[in-house]
Amino acid sequence: MATRPKAPKLTDEQRFDWLRLIRSENVGPRTFRALLKNCGGARAALEALPELARRGGAVRPIRVASADEIERELAVARKLGVRFVALCEPAYPQVLRQIDSAPPVLALAGREEALQQPAVAIVGSRNASAAGLTFADRLARGLGQAGYVVVSGLARGIDQRVHAASLATGAVGVLAGGHAKPYPSEAVPLIARMIEFGAVVSEMPIEWEPRGRDFPRRNRIVSGLALGTVVVEAARGSGSLITARFALDQNRQVLAVPGSPLDPRAEGTNDLLKQGAMICTSADDVLTALEPARSGDFFASLNEGGGDEEALWGEQSLFDVDPGATPRSCIGDELAAARRGADQSADDAGGARDRIMALLGPSPVSLDELARAAEATTREVRVTLIELELAGRVEFSGGNRISLRPARGDAE
Amino acid sequence: MATRPKAPKLTDEQRFDWLRLIRSENVGPRTFRALLKNCGGARAALEALPELARRGGAVRPIRVASADEIERELAVARKLGVRFVALCEPAYPQVLRQIDSAPPVLALAGREEALQQPAVAIVGSRNASAAGLTFADRLARGLGQAGYVVVSGLARGIDQRVHAASLATGAVGVLAGGHAKPYPSEAVPLIARMIEFGAVVSEMPIEWEPRGRDFPRRNRIVSGLALGTVVVEAARGSGSLITARFALDQNRQVLAVPGSPLDPRAEGTNDLLKQGAMICTSADDVLTALEPARSGDFFASLNEGGGDEEALWGEQSLFDVDPGATPRSCIGDELAAARRGADQSADDAGGARDRIMALLGPSPVSLDELARAAEATTREVRVTLIELELAGRVEFSGGNRISLRPARGDAE
Repeated sequence: MATRPKAPKLTDEQRFDWLRLIRSENVGPRTFRALLKNCGGARAALEALPELARRGGAVRPIRVASADEIERELAVARKLGVRFVALCEPAYPQVLRQIDSAPPVLALAGREEALQQPAVAIVGSRNASAAGLTFADRLARGLGQAGYVVVSGLARGIDQRVHAASLATGAVGVLAGGHAKPYPSEAVPLIARMIEFGAVVSEMPIEWEPRGRDFPRRNRIVSGLALGTVVVEAARGSGSLITARFALDQNRQVLAVPGSPLDPRAEGTNDLLKQGAMICTSADDVLTALEPARSGDFFASLNEGGGDEEALWGEQSLFDVDPGATPRSCIGDELAAARRGADQSADDAGGARDRIMALLGPSPVSLDELARAAEATTREVRVTLIELELAGRVEFSGGNRISLRPARGDAE
Repeated sequence: MATRPKAPKLTDEQRFDWLRLIRSENVGPRTFRALLKNCGGARAALEALPELARRGGAVRPIRVASADEIERELAVARKLGVRFVALCEPAYPQVLRQIDSAPPVLALAGREEALQQPAVAIVGSRNASAAGLTFADRLARGLGQAGYVVVSGLARGIDQRVHAASLATGAVGVLAGGHAKPYPSEAVPLIARMIEFGAVVSEMPIEWEPRGRDFPRRNRIVSGLALGTVVVEAARGSGSLITARFALDQNRQVLAVPGSPLDPRAEGTNDLLKQGAMICTSADDVLTALEPARSGDFFASLNEGGGDEEALWGEQSLFDVDPGATPRSCIGDELAAARRGADQSADDAGGARDRIMALLGPSPVSLDELARAAEATTREVRVTLIELELAGRVEFSGGNRISLRPARGDAE
């Protein structure tokens, strides 16, 4: 794979700021990255948050995570043996780092090394058939023996079977909630064994109780950690298909295990095959499909496909940013100009924001389209989007597309 | 579809000659067509057979079917209600006519109209699973209701289930032997019902007892009658996969029904999916896959892809030949020249035959390659191949490729 500049390791203080920033209101993984780019560091971003949100149209002050809150999370983590690994650090899983919405901080129990091996995700139904479970077991063992870590979602059925089958070779699980609230509870003994040779990770606050919408969100990390995702059994509309969709959006391989058309648990996997997923009837199929990615072409192709994000966030990648750099003004040129008085530059910048706002609607548009249509500079678009996202007025969807959030009845 | 010149109907005498020619030794469907092209009619070809075979190097006289033999076949056919339909006649199934090795004469019991409707082949294991049988039944009914005749091979298991499920909408069966020796015998009552609304066809002499090698050969007619072939269940190496291979060679759609990787009866179909077959989990999948063919693009594409055969047999298609034309010399220019004395033309032609023979080996080569390498005219290649085939010294394989037959220990 391509050589990268050696990634930095954060100081304790920087890690503290990173955690505060990602635990603050309306700061998702994308906004986090944009803030870091724009402000030069997490501390500067934290300081700028209230003003940025206000300019984006927030009707009340944004909630910034308190130092106490983070102290408590760190204390619980120490007790549980959980460490926090930041996106820019060497221990962060390199393949996960490539996805658009990579968690800025990953809470990790277990062995860092497990996250550095090539990985494959195997997912499937909670109410799996005996044949599905047997096949999942065989597949996980075969791939483990071939040197792959196996990632899954700790759920009943296929997920847990897959974890159990790869304990000795490397099992990685992704929690939908925090480490202090493992879910499902029946998986607790399994988790304890997984962290001996493998790892269990979470992006959520350590005491977060997972709710329904956290599971699909979690699935992007399952697929994101892996070079490819295999769906063993899945009914139509099941969560495993969401994982497959994420894998596709992340330019990862998707494989599906075929099943009888009369078996409802095969409907989802057969649909995937119709949509172009590769067919998987043995570990060899997976090894063949992932070989190009494993041997490095994968990373090359990802680097080529930078597209929208590169254009907006600049050529300098996040990993080249010095996280300890002196904070600089990150409210945007227009703020600086406004402080100097209402000169030409401020008018221009305010005008660009108005044009961008007017162009956004409920249908997602790409950042490129937006910048072109608004006749704005990438920096203007970047700052405006940060402001709007912090104010909770826009949202990102797959492939770096932005839409306006539906207006709420009350101003909350 | 493209309009063709109205195909002729044979006289009784011509039909008799066609039958004699195709029942003669070493005359397969391809050689039959080549002979008709070259000699201008079946009667002329019958007269030329002995000399052509001798020139091809036959060590004993070729066996030409006797008039008595054909009289007997016609008598048995009359008793059984079987008619003979020739390749050039309007009643011949139009889609079957397109394949390279279309039987020159088809023995037909049942309704001609069933062979004029769009057809789909459904094939599968003899020892099918209950799920496989249920699915095959559902598929055949769905396709029958959508206006498709369903073709299969009368075998136990999937084939017979498919025939039974399409009795009311149009069931077409292809025998591996003659109509007087229906196989398997358990299918006799089914066959009787099929010919009420559908048809049962055979290319073999009416009293032919089918042997092992007749079944794969028969399968090309099953796929050839249909716009596409669906394989429901198939173990590795099963006959259904041969039908799928024929369908592919015939530029027809191949669909396969997925199954669990743990089910040996799904290994063949899953393999087909890996090789690019379309996945079939419902009749709708088949309807979608065959829609372009049914609406006529299929025929257009076939006509474009004439390739080798067009080049060799001339632009005039078989259907434009007047089967009642005055027989003309068809031993080739070299024979005519030889009769005039050993002049330049005879030397050239004999030289071309030697060069063609020297170029042939056990590995199949295309006719085009052969003509180019031999620096021979297409007519020289055509005549030489007819001679060699009649002498039993070459054989055709898929895609119009020719190879030398392995020499026999004895000269027989």
